[in-house]
Amino acid sequence: MYNLLKGKKGIIFGALNSKSIAWKVAEKAFEEGATFTLSNTQVAMRFGEINELAEKCNAEIIPADATNLKDLEHLFTKSMEILGGKIDFVLHSIGMSLNVRKGRVYDDLDYNYFLKTIDISALSFHKVLQTARKLDAINEWGSVLALSYVAAQRTLYGYNDMADAKAILESIARSFGYIYGRDKKVRVNTISQSPTRTTAGSGVKGIDGLIDFTDRMSPLGNADAEDCANFCITMFSDLTKKITMQNIFHDGGFSSMGMSLRAMTQYNKSFGEDVEMNLE
Amino acid sequence: MYNLLKGKKGIIFGALNSKSIAWKVAEKAFEEGATFTLSNTQVAMRFGEINELAEKCNAEIIPADATNLKDLEHLFTKSMEILGGKIDFVLHSIGMSLNVRKGRVYDDLDYNYFLKTIDISALSFHKVLQTARKLDAINEWGSVLALSYVAAQRTLYGYNDMADAKAILESIARSFGYIYGRDKKVRVNTISQSPTRTTAGSGVKGIDGLIDFTDRMSPLGNADAEDCANFCITMFSDLTKKITMQNIFHDGGFSSMGMSLRAMTQYNKSFGEDVEMNLE
Amino acid sequence: MYNLLKGKKGIIFGALNSKSIAWKVAEKAFEEGATFTLSNTQVAMRFGEINELAEKCNAEIIPADATNLKDLEHLFTKSMEILGGKIDFVLHSIGMSLNVRKGRVYDDLDYNYFLKTIDISALSFHKVLQTARKLDAINEWGSVLALSYVAAQRTLYGYNDMADAKAILESIARSFGYIYGRDKKVRVNTISQSPTRTTAGSGVKGIDGLIDFTDRMSPLGNADAEDCANFCITMFSDLTKKITMQNIFHDGGFSSMGMSLRAMTQYNKSFGEDVEMNLE
Amino acid sequence: MYNLLKGKKGIIFGALNSKSIAWKVAEKAFEEGATFTLSNTQVAMRFGEINELAEKCNAEIIPADATNLKDLEHLFTKSMEILGGKIDFVLHSIGMSLNVRKGRVYDDLDYNYFLKTIDISALSFHKVLQTARKLDAINEWGSVLALSYVAAQRTLYGYNDMADAKAILESIARSFGYIYGRDKKVRVNTISQSPTRTTAGSGVKGIDGLIDFTDRMSPLGNADAEDCANFCITMFSDLTKKITMQNIFHDGGFSSMGMSLRAMTQYNKSFGEDVEMNLE
Repeated sequence: MYNLLKGKKGIIFGALNSKSIAWKVAEKAFEEGATFTLSNTQVAMRFGEINELAEKCNAEIIPADATNLKDLEHLFTKSMEILGGKIDFVLHSIGMSLNVRKGRVYDDLDYNYFLKTIDISALSFHKVLQTARKLDAINEWGSVLALSYVAAQRTLYGYNDMADAKAILESIARSFGYIYGRDKKVRVNTISQSPTRTTAGSGVKGIDGLIDFTDRMSPLGNADAEDCANFCITMFSDLTKKITMQNIFHDGGFSSMGMSLRAMTQYNKSFGEDVEMNLE
Repeated sequence: MYNLLKGKKGIIFGALNSKSIAWKVAEKAFEEGATFTLSNTQVAMRFGEINELAEKCNAEIIPADATNLKDLEHLFTKSMEILGGKIDFVLHSIGMSLNVRKGRVYDDLDYNYFLKTIDISALSFHKVLQTARKLDAINEWGSVLALSYVAAQRTLYGYNDMADAKAILESIARSFGYIYGRDKKVRVNTISQSPTRTTAGSGVKGIDGLIDFTDRMSPLGNADAEDCANFCITMFSDLTKKITMQNIFHDGGFSSMGMSLRAMTQYNKSFGEDVEMNLE
Repeated sequence: MYNLLKGKKGIIFGALNSKSIAWKVAEKAFEEGATFTLSNTQVAMRFGEINELAEKCNAEIIPADATNLKDLEHLFTKSMEILGGKIDFVLHSIGMSLNVRKGRVYDDLDYNYFLKTIDISALSFHKVLQTARKLDAINEWGSVLALSYVAAQRTLYGYNDMADAKAILESIARSFGYIYGRDKKVRVNTISQSPTRTTAGSGVKGIDGLIDFTDRMSPLGNADAEDCANFCITMFSDLTKKITMQNIFHDGGFSSMGMSLRAMTQYNKSFGEDVEMNLE
Repeated sequence: MYNLLKGKKGIIFGALNSKSIAWKVAEKAFEEGATFTLSNTQVAMRFGEINELAEKCNAEIIPADATNLKDLEHLFTKSMEILGGKIDFVLHSIGMSLNVRKGRVYDDLDYNYFLKTIDISALSFHKVLQTARKLDAINEWGSVLALSYVAAQRTLYGYNDMADAKAILESIARSFGYIYGRDKKVRVNTISQSPTRTTAGSGVKGIDGLIDFTDRMSPLGNADAEDCANFCITMFSDLTKKITMQNIFHDGGFSSMGMSLRAMTQYNKSFGEDVEMNLE
């Protein structure tokens, strides 16, 4: 629509199906004039419909396990070859907890799973950055984003070890953002997005009630995948060059809310009586 | 019980009746060996039962309007005279919003009331500190506390311009804490306390539902006035000498919660159906 | 360049001369297809070169004292008339401290000046919002921005009562952002900008050393007025619709830094010896 | 001195020598009437002088690798046996980075080392909590503390992957604090301490310049190990029962500082000229 990413080259991790945030980012980036490669694990690709997206966006798919340095090296090298130059933007939308999947609650964690959660959901971000840095694969003023969640700051029951993974993910964005900014003017940020009904999000327990609650708490309602993609585009563009090492909340206002009238009204209904509330 | 404040001299603002946090702080400070004066406005004292407290704690009452520099000067001078030396600790528990009282909602504020809210609830803290500083009325390593609320960080409907007042109160603690620490080793902090059913708190709209919600959100439940007083004692003691310019949450964990199982379960009842929740 | 604000109508407060952030925002907004009015106080306009800007951007100037409700009402009414409809974006770039100007240090404040600082630098933002809200002058999904500074979170000597003003400014953005978002989908945010050598900034004590320090601390260096203007454009655009009640740091990374190699190296030179530092 | 921990039973991890914060905590806890066991790794104990401490405090030493569940189970079981009942307080003062030790910089990390850093410095805290929880080894209102550092929020060059470890450590305190608070009223917090010249701290690069800088930045100067121990005592006592899931800065004010007069004056000397600074 605006040609905001005209001439820019990117790598987008984590598009699984049309509900994925990464999917929407790819669509928008394409509309805004970018060329990019798509990457996901072999397994994820089997379940996903990523070929459809690739065709639509005229993008090549390069499978990679983001925890595997060899795979990442190949991904960056190959992407630069295909796109004809260094990379301008990267989206990291990767997260998975075996503890969540296997129903291990937070006070009965399997520690091998825990390390796996960290490796997949956070350390992979460091590996992406370190690989890019070593290959000098990102242009000056390039922009790298990872998707996070408010659980990094506040505990939500059932979110389990993913909360810790998001905390370290945001820390990596700061730590590596300092070095990459200093040395190559590359900026690194995370976006803390509303809970989103993606395939990934749907594994989290009690997600429906939570999504209702956060929607009523947020003055603008929950941000959806498309909203998030729009914001990502601005963060990849040349208009946000001096933002780095930040975690930006893209959540309809939720993170700054203590209690809204709408959520409180709903909550009060739980007591089975009509609690009268003054407007405001 | 522990003699934590043995030999220490203080000034306690804001004890109105036995529900007040300041009242509990006075009782505990007395138990811990401190001597102090009590201060409140003339009007507040008419409604309060402060004489009873004064007798119990062997404390003199010195009326003062904390927005009035002359009153504050008199209060400090007189307190040092009565207590026989410089002050070691001060509690500021003062807050009032005419907009709340008069039912002016946040998008229809009266701006004279607004400035009055700021003056009474926040600027009074600066006036206390500046008066003390000019009179050199506080001993090295003295400790000054003000009571705050999480509304300084997150919006709670109905809390109105008191949220802004708490934000500036916490800012004043930092700004003056820097100067007073640097020049005289005096530390200045705020305590962000759970919503408390004091006379002051009871003016806030929908306080009952909110107190139920925050109680269910907080793993330890809401902190009450007595809990808060206990913590204040430690902050006045010699064991916390290197903490300054901080806002410390004393709230049963609320400020670090996104959603608890207990609150979510209650919330889900509002939909009139039994939503089954897995434990954790 | 991108037509990001095509068809959008705005009001820009605070353009004084070509160094002003508001000036740059006006230029960029014009380039991006917006129409808008410019506003400043009568006094500021006498010193400024705002007519030049107005001509360049094909904008009308409407003088207003942003602390005066009548002036603000006139400004909004007149702007809608001139622009032919409701407003889509507002920039609030207003701040002034008489305590700073008159050399009153933070432990010797004049309290009338203090209230004036609050009124001009923060309460004016509430007045702008309340006036707009009452006139229903802003379109759904409109975007309102105010400029802030990291002093709202961390004390910088010499920044004086402006720190408290910025703290309350950010609080107002949250408090009003909740209501305006809930009722009209209007988003309200603040941008926390690097120290900038504007006419306004130059009054702050020791600004040169500070600017050097923050520049060396920030991996991307200080953000300048033009960088800030670019970011403002994205915040006014339709691509950031779900961000509200936030304070976003636009500062080259400064706010997330504890200590950089570059700043530490410079600092160590102060000891008059060559302290050898390992790279990293 | 105050009998604040009279009758309380504890476990203290990480006392290496008399410079260690854990060492000071043990001394103070003993003075305050607590009984406790001391724990450290076999290797650490070989270098340390922990026997001297044990004698002084009348405490038994139970070696344990805090990353090893069997060791932790033995430690808790044995401690309860020795102390004659459940535990009231635990101090976790454990951290180590092989990347730091081996000189691997942050953009050239060894990922096995990285996972080791996380395991030792952060996951061990979860293991301690999970083990205690499963054995039901901590009394109601028990208090568990871990030591953290501001690098969890802000990047300090050279602190390397320990920053990420501290970020996840603080996240674990929140995540587990919710569960342990909800189920057993046990509170879990971290203390973010000034940089301290302990044996552990001395491995960090450029620590001297940094300690000078933070000392000049902090209005009360850096907090030392003894100050920290005093604060830990209050956090273990019954006076802080409603504080949980918090990270409390115990740092002389550093975390709330943007720039102090003292640090700026020193910084300005680096330019080899006498920059005149007004006082304030």
